[in-house]
Amino acid sequence: MTRIAQLKARLARRDLDGFLISQPDNRRFISGFSAADHSIQESAGVLFIPRRGMPILLTDSRFALDARQEAAGFSVRTYSKGMLPLLSSILEEYRSKRLGFDSHYTLHSTSEELLKICHEIDVEPVATTGIVESMRLCKSAEELQKLQGSVTMNETVFQEVHRTMQPGMTEIEIAMHIETLMRQRGAEKPSFDTIVASGANGASPHAVPGQRQIKAGEPIVIDMGLVLDGYCSDMTRTVVLGKPAAKTAEIIRIVRKAQLAGMAAIRAGVTGRQVDQAARKIIKDAGYGDCFGHGLGHGVGLAVHEGPNLSPRYTRKLQVGMVVTVEPGIYIEGWGGVRLENMVVVTREGCRNLNRDTTCLDI
Amino acid sequence: MTRIAQLKARLARRDLDGFLISQPDNRRFISGFSAADHSIQESAGVLFIPRRGMPILLTDSRFALDARQEAAGFSVRTYSKGMLPLLSSILEEYRSKRLGFDSHYTLHSTSEELLKICHEIDVEPVATTGIVESMRLCKSAEELQKLQGSVTMNETVFQEVHRTMQPGMTEIEIAMHIETLMRQRGAEKPSFDTIVASGANGASPHAVPGQRQIKAGEPIVIDMGLVLDGYCSDMTRTVVLGKPAAKTAEIIRIVRKAQLAGMAAIRAGVTGRQVDQAARKIIKDAGYGDCFGHGLGHGVGLAVHEGPNLSPRYTRKLQVGMVVTVEPGIYIEGWGGVRLENMVVVTREGCRNLNRDTTCLDI
Repeated sequence: MTRIAQLKARLARRDLDGFLISQPDNRRFISGFSAADHSIQESAGVLFIPRRGMPILLTDSRFALDARQEAAGFSVRTYSKGMLPLLSSILEEYRSKRLGFDSHYTLHSTSEELLKICHEIDVEPVATTGIVESMRLCKSAEELQKLQGSVTMNETVFQEVHRTMQPGMTEIEIAMHIETLMRQRGAEKPSFDTIVASGANGASPHAVPGQRQIKAGEPIVIDMGLVLDGYCSDMTRTVVLGKPAAKTAEIIRIVRKAQLAGMAAIRAGVTGRQVDQAARKIIKDAGYGDCFGHGLGHGVGLAVHEGPNLSPRYTRKLQVGMVVTVEPGIYIEGWGGVRLENMVVVTREGCRNLNRDTTCLDI
Repeated sequence: MTRIAQLKARLARRDLDGFLISQPDNRRFISGFSAADHSIQESAGVLFIPRRGMPILLTDSRFALDARQEAAGFSVRTYSKGMLPLLSSILEEYRSKRLGFDSHYTLHSTSEELLKICHEIDVEPVATTGIVESMRLCKSAEELQKLQGSVTMNETVFQEVHRTMQPGMTEIEIAMHIETLMRQRGAEKPSFDTIVASGANGASPHAVPGQRQIKAGEPIVIDMGLVLDGYCSDMTRTVVLGKPAAKTAEIIRIVRKAQLAGMAAIRAGVTGRQVDQAARKIIKDAGYGDCFGHGLGHGVGLAVHEGPNLSPRYTRKLQVGMVVTVEPGIYIEGWGGVRLENMVVVTREGCRNLNRDTTCLDI
């Protein structure tokens, strides 16, 4: 069943006869149209999915050419004075009566305008959440292939940069080298701002690369990912130049053990919470429970952070084809941090690691 | 008058006794708290500004330390299970009755939750737009100094990269060199994705740098900006390596003439539309009217795109202290593009150019 057919079936179950999609990843997932929004207030376009009939991509002239090339099976219509007047005429044309929109991605001001035009033409607007997101949770074979491609390119870039790393280089130099290679290898862009956090800077899970020079023996957290063919990768390695200090080696071993325990706990049917706990237990038992303040992992796909989650609060079950990160960490104020992150696919019996790189994992 | 006092005066005029600020630039403008949001669904915090009494910054534990250091005059309170329960207790404490929120930055789903908690404690939520944005339009002396610093650093980076440019380099190499230097000079980050668009690629105003190698004689559009101390710069130069082809030189001269005409038209009291028309007329008269599809300029400050606008539709008047770009362009499918962009401050008599760089402007 095509994605459009799946979506139409979901609309039918909710008795919606039309649905709007404006969130860029959802828009790309359903239509193939790959444009990004400059901001939530500057949309590159909206999909209108009727329960019956041809779906429509509403966009402006800047994107019309790309839209026609990318959004197979969509009728592309352009607006010049705002999306809503065009939408209004389309709703009349399709005689939609109940129109779903995404409450988690529509601004209050837009929803007010939408309510107004719906009222004028006797359409009932229906706030929904997660309809397309839930379709994105389990990846198809084609998506897994794209994710694998993204992970592999990311590892190649990491390894190439790792080979050149020398004491005295700055975090910024290394981060920019990584992002330059990503683009040179053909990635669309980094999937998030590259983190290079050396020594004490590693104590913050979301450190920003700075002018600090890296030193031998200390942990250097490198968290990086890229977008290839729309799909994101996300990998963390904690590397050490030369021989690690004793404490560094000890903490890397604990985090690695937690990562392996997390990966071993994954299979279809277990909850995200259970997986988180399997890894967290190792870190807690080693006496570092307070030093692991974030969840164990998150889904990755068109977005670098999406469902499901591996976290203490996520009590839903994992399913075959979900792709998640497994990324335990230990962060110690004034000392630094260690985080190790792989991306795995959930299978019936366990999980399959998309990562091959083993740099500094097992010391 | 402090910004908080100005804002409280505006709340009084609207009979609001409390106001929420979640948009990151507005949040930073009012409080000094500089954190970015990971996405509109993952907020780093919200300001609650009571009409009387101490303003509050609601955030989570990850940001509490930075919040306390940056947000002078704010009481920082942290939530662990979502912002709204904490907000609810604060509203009761302050006995707020009419609570303003930003309709242009609040998600429909958040507004629904907000309505619910407001209803429970008998508070009236009031959708507003542009209250803080309007305070950001005219820059203070201190802000102008920061903008000048951002512009100057941006020009230094441009000039350093320009000196190294050689035929055969790729657009990506040049863009990444620019972004690396920005960070090395101490910028927080680029203010937008750097554009390097050579030859025919320049025909799209928002081209993405690719693997194309630059050539002598052709126009190479470089549009770049950085964030320093929170404030953005935005500059475009169209450079030519070696002697420009005749058509290239002709088009650069037309665009430069349009830019100078636009700058000459600026002063407090004229409308954005009038300034746009002054520049647009030069391009139209030269026969390229159809090749200039965007507005002449936009405001710059904490955001790289903010009010006011220099465009055919913007009929409000410019005021002393506004900072705008002046960036006419000519884009020709299959040939390429030329755009020249400076940032200027509106004064009573005219404008003051924040840019000093003259690379390839007058050929």
